Amino acid sequence: MAQHIYDDPAFFAGYSEFPRSRDGLSATSEWPAFRALLPPIAGKRAIDLGCGFGQLSRWLAENGAASVIGYDLSAMMLERAVRETRDPVVSYRRADLETLDLPAGSAELVVSSMALHYLADFARMAATVHAALVPGGDFVFSVEHPIYAARAEPEWVDTADGERAFAITGYSTEGRRVTNWIAEGVVKYHRTIATMLNTLRAAGFEFTALDEWRPTSAELEQRPDWHDELHRPMFLLVALHRP
Amino acid sequence: MAQHIYDDPAFFAGYSEFPRSRDGLSATSEWPAFRALLPPIAGKRAIDLGCGFGQLSRWLAENGAASVIGYDLSAMMLERAVRETRDPVVSYRRADLETLDLPAGSAELVVSSMALHYLADFARMAATVHAALVPGGDFVFSVEHPIYAARAEPEWVDTADGERAFAITGYSTEGRRVTNWIAEGVVKYHRTIATMLNTLRAAGFEFTALDEWRPTSAELEQRPDWHDELHRPMFLLVALHRP
Repeated sequence: MAQHIYDDPAFFAGYSEFPRSRDGLSATSEWPAFRALLPPIAGKRAIDLGCGFGQLSRWLAENGAASVIGYDLSAMMLERAVRETRDPVVSYRRADLETLDLPAGSAELVVSSMALHYLADFARMAATVHAALVPGGDFVFSVEHPIYAARAEPEWVDTADGERAFAITGYSTEGRRVTNWIAEGVVKYHRTIATMLNTLRAAGFEFTALDEWRPTSAELEQRPDWHDELHRPMFLLVALHRP
Repeated sequence: MAQHIYDDPAFFAGYSEFPRSRDGLSATSEWPAFRALLPPIAGKRAIDLGCGFGQLSRWLAENGAASVIGYDLSAMMLERAVRETRDPVVSYRRADLETLDLPAGSAELVVSSMALHYLADFARMAATVHAALVPGGDFVFSVEHPIYAARAEPEWVDTADGERAFAITGYSTEGRRVTNWIAEGVVKYHRTIATMLNTLRAAGFEFTALDEWRPTSAELEQRPDWHDELHRPMFLLVALHRP
């Protein structure tokens, strides 16, 4: 079973204070890049893996999805998701993504925002999503970028000439990482870009697009504190197609 | 015109001392991974971009290629390539890859080993290779991994707890890098994995496989000094298919 950290009261309280938790997609830095990877939504049956508070599920419904099913392991996240959702095309189900089964050919679109790096078995998830999609369907997801996630605790260092740099260790050593993020002992799984793309292709997907998120020039003018984001990407976004 | 560093006598002398220059593919750490990405060779017309001393061109001929044309900018590299090649199916041509034109549909296989990071215009090269391939053809290449190449001068640093880490800066700021590698002022171009894969897809390629080179367990037993290679990949290998 996947680690159940989002129902830890201290973690939940801390996570609920994040800008993206309070203010939704408009406060989610990588959202414009994610949205740009999405195919047309209208009329599609969508699945949202790791839906959390349901922001993305609701956005899909607002943009014409015929139905949206959001899955999450956290009862506390889903409780708020249900409370904040009026649209009857959206439903939520509590499930462990690590063992989730989805009905074959039940969706034209599967999305997942910042959830799949919690899963130990990426190949199982790739196969599950592929089977859930109809031919012609699309899969768009984001995870922590492996450059960011390789080292359990992100760390900035100074180079010999005093420049600020991001420390990378263990990029090619995949597997479990235990990090202190909001709460102590948060478990996630590091895998390389090659492993993700090769696994998705082995599952039958065609690669469509990759986005290693970086702020735009306009965003950098408004958010000078985002300049460090140019040193290393924090988010990896992937779009795939089931032929 | 691409920088012409390989005909700089000091650079050429230094490069000629590299294990891969002296001993060929058997001394090229990423060669087993590169070979694993190659399709069957027999009967194929092959093009080798940035062929250098011709090791890969000759290997393709030895493995049954119908013809191999190796292109390189360096007269000094090609002089040795010609001298060391007996097989009449291999020929060499001096050309600047930055402005190279290739006959349409003239090859079933295009390869390039550690050359394309010297090119400013990756999109032009992707389009050139795509046009040169017949439908069903393959393109396999290696470049410096962008994690390694982001920072002009590779640098190891110590983290707060004294661990050895690789310093990454400017991953998301693409473009020209001037580095001191063998000689001073070697010009290369940093681009992200996303830019490379998205550019190749825009040119019409289908993604086949990615390899972010790391030593195998067996190699690590023989070469304990390669353990640092697990911290950050130095080589990126990409395989693509022209549908």
